[in-house]
Amino acid sequence: MSKLLDNVCGELQRLPGIGRRTAMRLAMHILKMEPEVVDSLSQSIARFRHDIRYCRSCNNLSDGDLCPICSDTRRDGSVICVVEQVQDLMSIENTGQYRGMYHVLGGVISPMQGIGPSDLKIDLLCDKLLTGTIKEVIVAISTSVEGETTLFYILSRLKAFPDVRVTTIARGIGFGDELEYVDELTITHALMNRREVARE
Amino acid sequence: MSKLLDNVCGELQRLPGIGRRTAMRLAMHILKMEPEVVDSLSQSIARFRHDIRYCRSCNNLSDGDLCPICSDTRRDGSVICVVEQVQDLMSIENTGQYRGMYHVLGGVISPMQGIGPSDLKIDLLCDKLLTGTIKEVIVAISTSVEGETTLFYILSRLKAFPDVRVTTIARGIGFGDELEYVDELTITHALMNRREVARE
Repeated sequence: MSKLLDNVCGELQRLPGIGRRTAMRLAMHILKMEPEVVDSLSQSIARFRHDIRYCRSCNNLSDGDLCPICSDTRRDGSVICVVEQVQDLMSIENTGQYRGMYHVLGGVISPMQGIGPSDLKIDLLCDKLLTGTIKEVIVAISTSVEGETTLFYILSRLKAFPDVRVTTIARGIGFGDELEYVDELTITHALMNRREVARE
Repeated sequence: MSKLLDNVCGELQRLPGIGRRTAMRLAMHILKMEPEVVDSLSQSIARFRHDIRYCRSCNNLSDGDLCPICSDTRRDGSVICVVEQVQDLMSIENTGQYRGMYHVLGGVISPMQGIGPSDLKIDLLCDKLLTGTIKEVIVAISTSVEGETTLFYILSRLKAFPDVRVTTIARGIGFGDELEYVDELTITHALMNRREVARE
């Protein structure tokens, strides 16, 4: 077999969700792409890995010292939304409804995976609160056991800042979800957090 | 959003089966890989596209002028197995049961996609038959309408070589296939091509 083909298939298989057949299919597609387009793909991968940085303020991925969100002076600097990972930040940004700042933890506490509080950017969050300009911290992390553990740890650390309001995002039935298939815990929370409907 | 991230996600989405979310997941995985490993991935893609060649004898992917199969003198040069694409050649090679040569057409005749006989390496196949050393041509292309059209075209061209035996691979019920779910045409062929069982 061609060594070049073997090589590219082997390398592609290092990526998650890409097995032998998918790697082969990608390689065959790459063959049909214009050489310049392949160069651009290849270079963007290497550049991304080498040049990407983490925002020194919020730990978001960034091209420079500060990410575009932290350097945007039109945003509300008094609210910080704490998320697990960059993807979560993007999901919230995509709604176009949130104008505050973010703080990316870089994971959740998971003794199973050897991730403790010191592996997350929690100290960096507390440092920001020390400035006294933050009014609210919205914790938007997953409801898994690890997520809840992380939430409680953050809450314990935030006790040092009694003037800062701490909230979590609402748990409830998603739009389009069928009640029949929603788990009991979510329904329980949705019932407890029911809202009065305005009549008229 | 980070331009480097945007860039790598956009480039990854040029690949088949990779959408916005998958591109993001791949990018996040790339971030966790060692820089040298990412360089090796990136370079293997570019090298593959630039340096790959097609075997001048069988049209298989090759690192040089002749592919490893065509340059292997221990193989049976009197039999040629005609396949649609390199992946099919590999599937047959993986059985470890075939010791003849191959011929990669590079597609099948498809008027819908504007692929005519001259776009396939059929002349190259006939040139090989002119040498007089070939005893058998096994046509192993798919049973789609395009595949059958291609088969008939090849058969018409091979009429010029009456001494060469032309065969197609057997159609039948695959191992592990349940008869209940096999289509009628396959069952019909499997019945017609039934084999006597040796009673010792």
